Amino acid sequence: MSADPTSIVHVDLGARSYRILIGPALLDTPGTYDDLAPGHSCAIVTNETVAPLYADRLARALRERYAKVDVITLRDGEAHKDWLTLHAIFDGLVGGGCDRGTTLFALGGGVVGDVAGFAAACYMRGIAYVQVPTTLLAQVDSSVGGKTAINHPHGKNLIGAFYQPELVVADVDTLDTLPQRELVAGLAEVIKYGAVADDAFLGWIEGNLAALLARDKTALSHAVTTSCRIKAEVVANDEREAGRRAILNFGHTFAHAIETGTGHGTWLHGEAVGCGMAMAADLSARLGLVGRVQAERVARIVGAAGLPLRAPRLGLERYLELMRMDKKAQGGQMRFVLLQGPGQAGLGAVDPAQVTDTIENFCA
Amino acid sequence: MSADPTSIVHVDLGARSYRILIGPALLDTPGTYDDLAPGHSCAIVTNETVAPLYADRLARALRERYAKVDVITLRDGEAHKDWLTLHAIFDGLVGGGCDRGTTLFALGGGVVGDVAGFAAACYMRGIAYVQVPTTLLAQVDSSVGGKTAINHPHGKNLIGAFYQPELVVADVDTLDTLPQRELVAGLAEVIKYGAVADDAFLGWIEGNLAALLARDKTALSHAVTTSCRIKAEVVANDEREAGRRAILNFGHTFAHAIETGTGHGTWLHGEAVGCGMAMAADLSARLGLVGRVQAERVARIVGAAGLPLRAPRLGLERYLELMRMDKKAQGGQMRFVLLQGPGQAGLGAVDPAQVTDTIENFCA
Repeated sequence: MSADPTSIVHVDLGARSYRILIGPALLDTPGTYDDLAPGHSCAIVTNETVAPLYADRLARALRERYAKVDVITLRDGEAHKDWLTLHAIFDGLVGGGCDRGTTLFALGGGVVGDVAGFAAACYMRGIAYVQVPTTLLAQVDSSVGGKTAINHPHGKNLIGAFYQPELVVADVDTLDTLPQRELVAGLAEVIKYGAVADDAFLGWIEGNLAALLARDKTALSHAVTTSCRIKAEVVANDEREAGRRAILNFGHTFAHAIETGTGHGTWLHGEAVGCGMAMAADLSARLGLVGRVQAERVARIVGAAGLPLRAPRLGLERYLELMRMDKKAQGGQMRFVLLQGPGQAGLGAVDPAQVTDTIENFCA
Repeated sequence: MSADPTSIVHVDLGARSYRILIGPALLDTPGTYDDLAPGHSCAIVTNETVAPLYADRLARALRERYAKVDVITLRDGEAHKDWLTLHAIFDGLVGGGCDRGTTLFALGGGVVGDVAGFAAACYMRGIAYVQVPTTLLAQVDSSVGGKTAINHPHGKNLIGAFYQPELVVADVDTLDTLPQRELVAGLAEVIKYGAVADDAFLGWIEGNLAALLARDKTALSHAVTTSCRIKAEVVANDEREAGRRAILNFGHTFAHAIETGTGHGTWLHGEAVGCGMAMAADLSARLGLVGRVQAERVARIVGAAGLPLRAPRLGLERYLELMRMDKKAQGGQMRFVLLQGPGQAGLGAVDPAQVTDTIENFCA
């Protein structure tokens, strides 16, 4: 009598369209991968933390499809989202004799997805890849939209590509093994979708935070599905981030400054995004774009999720310098995603002086 | 009374379409760049050999369009088509404060075009770029089709992207400063277009080799224009090299083995392609796909252009090993572009034993 608990989000990008499967018990069910084009070999790229938990289970399911299944295990952490790790993947692919017909499976969190996706984009000028995100952040964020990248010493995600996967498999059962701090960090992006695109969803989050924090599978599935739907809709209309897609960077200008300023890996990305959203909401209210009540509501939900509301004391000048390096900056002017109403946001150029009050307020 | 000597080839790739301008006196004429989208800054990526000849002239023309013109000068040579050089470009772009609104100009031969194009593809997930090829090889080959790449210790062009320029400016006056050996190497690709796609053009080349070798501008312009037209037509129908575009790799499986086997930079790419075409023509005749007369005609034109007809003695096993690493190989089987008639070619899987006679014949 029970319905199939798997939900499907279609990401509509013409010839590069793909599906996101969301639900429990997906990762090691061979049928999950039935729609992939046949191939003779695949490579699972994962990290030392995820490998002992899920690599064998995924490999066993994939051996029913591929004659050869390699596993490439990376070091864990944002600090390793760099050239060395990218080289390690290339060396693993070359060493395994992988060719244009090989499919790469990115098994892990956002870092694995970003760097493995970028490797897939570049290896032989592009091989097929599948995202199997195992963190909440990766399931709701990096698994949709085809952004792949590594960090440069001077900026996060400075080197990368837009490259779409063939399929995304978001198995919510994998969230069972996620440290609580990472679950909370993932909720930051979930909150973001409500704040910038769907005020009713923001209300649902507010009412279901306890269930989400307790890892209720039904609540998590709903949160992941709705987040992916919102992101898929935005990305489908703006694949290369020329316009509306920018709203998905709500909180990210501040967040990138926090992450770079404290050294990548000190704050989790989601933690920085949580604080960054509260800051961007504050800035939006200071600019008169939304009422103070709406800005404080966003900050309250961020805080209730267990995300930080105080920014690190990097010094005002350092903040401004880091934000001028942001990819959205053009011609030296800073651009921020700003709230424009409940469930509405847009990109705006902001004078550095206007940002100063927000920074000082959150660093107090 | 004289007509504008500039010819234009349209590369039709939908939203990624662009034009190739071919003729004399283009590089330092500001009007050449009139159709580019406005921008506040640009970066010229060139090498230590080309910079003293053309960087200032190009920079002067570009200063009429861009408030800021940076020049990033790389070391010269295929040996530097690697990670270090790519990093040097990223560091130069970051150091110059380049952002998503910056346009990159690749000024030089195929190596500069490939590595600078790949840098443009990856920097901030893709910035606009313009190819200004200054070698015959780059004008007829790497300037069309959007293939960008660097080498990996285990394979040429193993890491890269398909990424289209906004514009290509092929100024045939820049061929005046090209060493004769490089002019000859460029002719290999010109001969290739005739051999695989246009038998009448192959006849024209045969009859005009003397004029081409003497750098007659009218002959060179015709050769570049016809080559680009053929390549543009093939690429427009197969941007990501799933099918017919593969014919442009005629001679390249042998050539890549020669280049990797002798160490990149020992043979010029065009020299390896010249010899590789004679070998692939020989293989085609051995397989009964074309008559011996057609295979020998291709070899005769290659030789008359001054290109090598003897392959380096790497040993049979090493050749086979290198060719199995070729990007066209799938599931361990070697695939070659083979002649199928005058001005006709196609891709075919070939048993290693069948390749042996050709290798031994050319290494004798």
